[in-house]
Amino acid sequence: MAESLADYEPLARDVLPAAVYDFVAGGSGLEQTVGLNRAAFFAITLTPRILTGLAKPNPSWMVLGTRWELPIAVAPMAYQKLLHPEGELHLAAAASRAGIPYTISTLSSVPLEKIAGVAPSWFQLYWLRDRRVVTSLVERAVDAGCGALMVTVDVPVMGRRLRDIRNQFALPPDIAPENLVDKVTEAHDAVPGVSAVAAHTASVFEPAVSWRDLEWLRSLCPIPLVIKGILDPRDARRAVEIGADGVVVSNHGGRQLDGAIASIDALGPVVDAVGKDCVVLLDSGVRSGLDVLKAVASGASGVLVGRPLLWALAVDAVDEALALLGREVRDAMLLAGCADLAAVRELSVGRATWPIWS
Amino acid sequence: MAESLADYEPLARDVLPAAVYDFVAGGSGLEQTVGLNRAAFFAITLTPRILTGLAKPNPSWMVLGTRWELPIAVAPMAYQKLLHPEGELHLAAAASRAGIPYTISTLSSVPLEKIAGVAPSWFQLYWLRDRRVVTSLVERAVDAGCGALMVTVDVPVMGRRLRDIRNQFALPPDIAPENLVDKVTEAHDAVPGVSAVAAHTASVFEPAVSWRDLEWLRSLCPIPLVIKGILDPRDARRAVEIGADGVVVSNHGGRQLDGAIASIDALGPVVDAVGKDCVVLLDSGVRSGLDVLKAVASGASGVLVGRPLLWALAVDAVDEALALLGREVRDAMLLAGCADLAAVRELSVGRATWPIWS
Amino acid sequence: MAESLADYEPLARDVLPAAVYDFVAGGSGLEQTVGLNRAAFFAITLTPRILTGLAKPNPSWMVLGTRWELPIAVAPMAYQKLLHPEGELHLAAAASRAGIPYTISTLSSVPLEKIAGVAPSWFQLYWLRDRRVVTSLVERAVDAGCGALMVTVDVPVMGRRLRDIRNQFALPPDIAPENLVDKVTEAHDAVPGVSAVAAHTASVFEPAVSWRDLEWLRSLCPIPLVIKGILDPRDARRAVEIGADGVVVSNHGGRQLDGAIASIDALGPVVDAVGKDCVVLLDSGVRSGLDVLKAVASGASGVLVGRPLLWALAVDAVDEALALLGREVRDAMLLAGCADLAAVRELSVGRATWPIWS
Amino acid sequence: MAESLADYEPLARDVLPAAVYDFVAGGSGLEQTVGLNRAAFFAITLTPRILTGLAKPNPSWMVLGTRWELPIAVAPMAYQKLLHPEGELHLAAAASRAGIPYTISTLSSVPLEKIAGVAPSWFQLYWLRDRRVVTSLVERAVDAGCGALMVTVDVPVMGRRLRDIRNQFALPPDIAPENLVDKVTEAHDAVPGVSAVAAHTASVFEPAVSWRDLEWLRSLCPIPLVIKGILDPRDARRAVEIGADGVVVSNHGGRQLDGAIASIDALGPVVDAVGKDCVVLLDSGVRSGLDVLKAVASGASGVLVGRPLLWALAVDAVDEALALLGREVRDAMLLAGCADLAAVRELSVGRATWPIWS
Ligand SMILES: Cc1cc2nc3c(=O)[nH]c(=O)nc-3n(C[C@H](O)[C@H](O)[C@H](O)COP(=O)(O)O)c2cc1C
Ligand SMILES: Cc1cc2nc3c(=O)[nH]c(=O)nc-3n(C[C@H](O)[C@H](O)[C@H](O)COP(=O)(O)O)c2cc1C
Ligand SMILES: Cc1cc2nc3c(=O)[nH]c(=O)nc-3n(C[C@H](O)[C@H](O)[C@H](O)COP(=O)(O)O)c2cc1C
Ligand SMILES: Cc1cc2nc3c(=O)[nH]c(=O)nc-3n(C[C@H](O)[C@H](O)[C@H](O)COP(=O)(O)O)c2cc1C
Repeated sequence: MAESLADYEPLARDVLPAAVYDFVAGGSGLEQTVGLNRAAFFAITLTPRILTGLAKPNPSWMVLGTRWELPIAVAPMAYQKLLHPEGELHLAAAASRAGIPYTISTLSSVPLEKIAGVAPSWFQLYWLRDRRVVTSLVERAVDAGCGALMVTVDVPVMGRRLRDIRNQFALPPDIAPENLVDKVTEAHDAVPGVSAVAAHTASVFEPAVSWRDLEWLRSLCPIPLVIKGILDPRDARRAVEIGADGVVVSNHGGRQLDGAIASIDALGPVVDAVGKDCVVLLDSGVRSGLDVLKAVASGASGVLVGRPLLWALAVDAVDEALALLGREVRDAMLLAGCADLAAVRELSVGRATWPIWS
Repeated sequence: MAESLADYEPLARDVLPAAVYDFVAGGSGLEQTVGLNRAAFFAITLTPRILTGLAKPNPSWMVLGTRWELPIAVAPMAYQKLLHPEGELHLAAAASRAGIPYTISTLSSVPLEKIAGVAPSWFQLYWLRDRRVVTSLVERAVDAGCGALMVTVDVPVMGRRLRDIRNQFALPPDIAPENLVDKVTEAHDAVPGVSAVAAHTASVFEPAVSWRDLEWLRSLCPIPLVIKGILDPRDARRAVEIGADGVVVSNHGGRQLDGAIASIDALGPVVDAVGKDCVVLLDSGVRSGLDVLKAVASGASGVLVGRPLLWALAVDAVDEALALLGREVRDAMLLAGCADLAAVRELSVGRATWPIWS
Repeated sequence: MAESLADYEPLARDVLPAAVYDFVAGGSGLEQTVGLNRAAFFAITLTPRILTGLAKPNPSWMVLGTRWELPIAVAPMAYQKLLHPEGELHLAAAASRAGIPYTISTLSSVPLEKIAGVAPSWFQLYWLRDRRVVTSLVERAVDAGCGALMVTVDVPVMGRRLRDIRNQFALPPDIAPENLVDKVTEAHDAVPGVSAVAAHTASVFEPAVSWRDLEWLRSLCPIPLVIKGILDPRDARRAVEIGADGVVVSNHGGRQLDGAIASIDALGPVVDAVGKDCVVLLDSGVRSGLDVLKAVASGASGVLVGRPLLWALAVDAVDEALALLGREVRDAMLLAGCADLAAVRELSVGRATWPIWS
Repeated sequence: MAESLADYEPLARDVLPAAVYDFVAGGSGLEQTVGLNRAAFFAITLTPRILTGLAKPNPSWMVLGTRWELPIAVAPMAYQKLLHPEGELHLAAAASRAGIPYTISTLSSVPLEKIAGVAPSWFQLYWLRDRRVVTSLVERAVDAGCGALMVTVDVPVMGRRLRDIRNQFALPPDIAPENLVDKVTEAHDAVPGVSAVAAHTASVFEPAVSWRDLEWLRSLCPIPLVIKGILDPRDARRAVEIGADGVVVSNHGGRQLDGAIASIDALGPVVDAVGKDCVVLLDSGVRSGLDVLKAVASGASGVLVGRPLLWALAVDAVDEALALLGREVRDAMLLAGCADLAAVRELSVGRATWPIWS
């Protein structure tokens, strides 16, 4: 049984095929950034407040026009049927029960409409070579009632994930990118020295996307637009200028540019650059309710949580995991003397003397 | 046999039931702050002085109107019968022989009056849901001759201590919170996935305490009032304003908000904030006489020592342990050229280049 | 098979005689600088840019009047027949196919003219006691069409490489310094407590070289002159003053002064000191395409790569290794949103919180 | 065989009784300062210079009116017969052959006159309770021709060295403090829980020495006076004021105040405080010729070397060790481009990014 969100990883490792475990856990290159994401969270300390007369903190989160139970969204993650027979449907329904938004990946293994049918969702867009498909995906997401469009801009191509290459990782035949037209793809072909999922994205993703394309998307998109994968404050400022409603400070969980700065270390300058002009979310390395507080105290409006929820999905424990995460957030708020997220933002944030790994 | 205070932990581990060891040793969450407390002490260096013509340093400590042999008090710690058949009585008597104050916990497993009968004591107050009990505890402490009231403000609820949850930790039937009315409690019920002691505190502690309540307590309390569990200098300043005589800079030994700043790292700003307006004590991570010097040189008036004394209690070596601790303090003062605590406060405090673990 | 440049070291270790492995891998003294070179690269983080509309980055490098495919040259390394029967010829031909310059060592185990015949080359000069040989080597390099003369100034004598001393490392009879007159040398005599290659260099290298000698060399040398082994910005400035076209910021891969600053840490001040007055290259510790980007983003014009290419040579995989390295550079540029090296230079460079080893 | 000074420790460990090994290797308390001394040296980087036209560096050292071959003195160390049948005589003769000063300990196991007869020596003075013995020791040292009097001020009592306490360390009957009147001492009595050597010093050393006593000593002492064991710049300044010719920045190799700042970290402020008004030496943690350069580049005039020479003594290799140390110094100077110690002082000193242990 799990007593903290971190407990699911070893449990999942025990039940998953090694190549699937690696696909989820892994990062690109030497996985420096995977490590940095964790180290940077450990390095942060909080200074709790006392005697605030608080019995029950309220972690509810107002973002992009909606109020949620927690300052947490499920990060967009491809092919969730790898982890559970019902895949996205199962995790999305749990998110809905927990009162947090679910982000549907372009590469979901269940059609987006079905997922949006079970949970209030955001839709994550990868820019595909065929622009008509881009337009159609946006329309489908809007029609399905998605509350926001999150366009991911840090995947011109997939980062070289050496584990997948070594594992010749490919999708099993019954799992496919259900939102796309071609469902039998390179992603299914195990080839020595190749990650089949990387080969697939190389064939369908447009690498050469520009700010001009984003302006076009902005004009096209009637719902809030969030840009995911920003680390440089100059780019964050540009996002505001083209009318984005939000940005996600993210290094894609260490899966794209290895050696990229830890997201949480990149957060401050981005927050300073955009001020109140757009919403700033963060992902990469959030592993506990405490980390959620650390991110919010460091200036994030809220966070996306990735891998931990896939580990819970793999062991059929998503409701428990989300309950635990909510509990960790509320406990940390109570112990830090924070009635609400605004109070969390007022906490003093420090830096640990020396590395302490749990 | 023990040659340093640090020696008692492995000795105690050998003799204690694993769940009791864990209850004492553990912290909340991933125990980041437990680790930070130690790392932060290791990181501090002192620059000794020479040729001060000193044969025998005087570590005696004037605090809250009384002079003690050492700048050390026994930290309030619940249920000491877990470690020794006589529990609090045994440790308190040793403290008395050593000439240092003993702090009686609200959750002592011996009635406070009995303990105060064997040793000059302070009384630690947890704020209970039933305010009449709060009033009565204060009156009893005053009547019993306690020299100070130390109100602990960092436990609105108990931090999630995963070891206790995993161990389904509960009190044995013969150990109870003897100061409280209800002695057969949730703390005795082993329930899967639950720390029984946490369940008990959740039922009896008032989580929503405010500064206004503290003002009320101040008006009620005829003896010196110390607030335990302050880390933010703004809160320390507020403590002065409501008339507190002292504060304890403490993260509760890493048992409350995991990820909280190390107490010793929080000390400087608190000392700067309160100046000479109240006494500043420190706990969390003190493991040797050297650490006592590091704390005092960093601005603390004196320290509370927690776990190390419980380890000594478990192996029936409290007199030896306190003698050793006193010796470590005196040795370190002599080698640092410090005639008294005022001289310790003048030492230069530095920071080690790199982590050195003992 | 190798999926990253770093993969060749363990592969080579498996096939090489231990003493040859040690000769290549080792550094001087306690190998502090060998470690620092790696740690300093790990410590650097990059902040990628997005939406630059880039499909295919162009890593081509204009240096010393020539354009190359990558901002990478093969570092000069002695006696490559130790690793492959064809030695230098094999690696140089691969460099040529990859479109990058090959640097011929004074101590090559194949005559320089032969190497220059198979690849566009630079010639690395060690200053020998017999000045006529120096003059003759320069003339031979120029006649052979070498594009630059790289004079190495950090080897007055060889650093004490304890592995070689412990191994009594000596050259096998069929490997010799083919550019020199005396080919049967001290380098072949295994003597207890002695590195034979060090004994040989002690006998033929001139330790007492000065800036005056460099001025003489400059006047003598009709091709671009690069000074290899500069770490102090004052020396870099001096190099500009005597008319050098370039400098290599290098600690010789940790093989000369143990305890020397990591090259990448020395880079910034050197770049500041010389401005645009000469080309600044860097070596020591580059192990991946990502490291190439880190170096360029930190101010280097390009880098030399040493040991990794010898490991590839040992397992007969130089074409694959150079292709992989090129791919790593292009991938990293694409993921960092950099169309060309000028864009790489504009990236923000940060420092990791804490050590992360891959 | 040894190829670096660091090699002698494991060799000695193999041949020495464990308690003797511990007596030499150990420090006080948790040995934090023993570790800090090493870490602080590893943390220092040097930036070598080039093309200085140097064939043979000159490490000779002018100090207190005498020129020596190296900027190194043998640190005063008690009871050297523990390591070699001839003890001090053997090491002193080797120092003499190597052209460096030998410091005779008050607690030498050979009478000081005998040692001064085989080597140019300094005499180290511990302040004894019987002031007539102090006077007599100074007179004897002067009469024996000692070149300086080094008074050690960081041993009011011996630091608690837990290894010695655990080992009940005592001197064998044939080893005694030969300079003292009482030669059969507490140092010979093995008592549980006691270090016999500490008990002996407690009985004969005067703990309460003051600056006033030093003034008296200064007036008494016709030869240069050096104060050993200074870390605080205020004390260094005071040393100048009472007319000391030199100070040794030292934490006694981590054997006195555990938690004391690393000597090399304390050096800079001391050098700034005394300027050219007296000579500044350093000890504690010097383990190689490179460390000697690091110390001199950081501002020391020269260093004392302690334990490494005892390890060499234990394996009867003192000539070899001193030759190796000299070679390491000269090699490092040559590779750093330093003709003499003045040039070493001009080197840039940096700090390594991250801990690198050899
Ligand atoms: C298995 C997996 C699949 C992912 N798929 C997508 C995706 O389809 N679209 C996307 O924008 N990000 C994707 N991501 C990145 C996540 O949205 C998120 O940025 C990252 O996982 C956050 O880091 P964390 O896992 O450390 O929480 C994926 C991540 C993982 C682990
Ligand atoms: C077993 C245990 C019980 C404790 N009980 C109490 C308590 O009843 N009241 C309180 O204010 N603090 C309590 N504390 C916290 C201590 O007073 C103190 O803040 C902490 O232990 C200091 O850290 P240290 O153990 O690292 O010295 C307890 C700590 C431990 C380890
Ligand atoms: C086996 C070996 C031989 C070398 N021979 C030479 C040489 O002949 N001339 C030279 O200037 N540098 C020589 N070097 C140093 C390299 O040119 C280069 O500075 C260093 O290897 C860069 O560090 P890296 O190996 O970490 O990439 C040699 C290095 C190695 C490992
Ligand atoms: C076994 C031993 C005996 C020592 N005896 C003395 C002594 O008699 N007098 C003294 O001033 N210092 C003494 N020292 C301290 C040394 O002089 C010196 O300060 C210290 O060893 C330097 O550190 P290092 O060993 O790291 O080089 C002793 C040190 C050791 C290891």
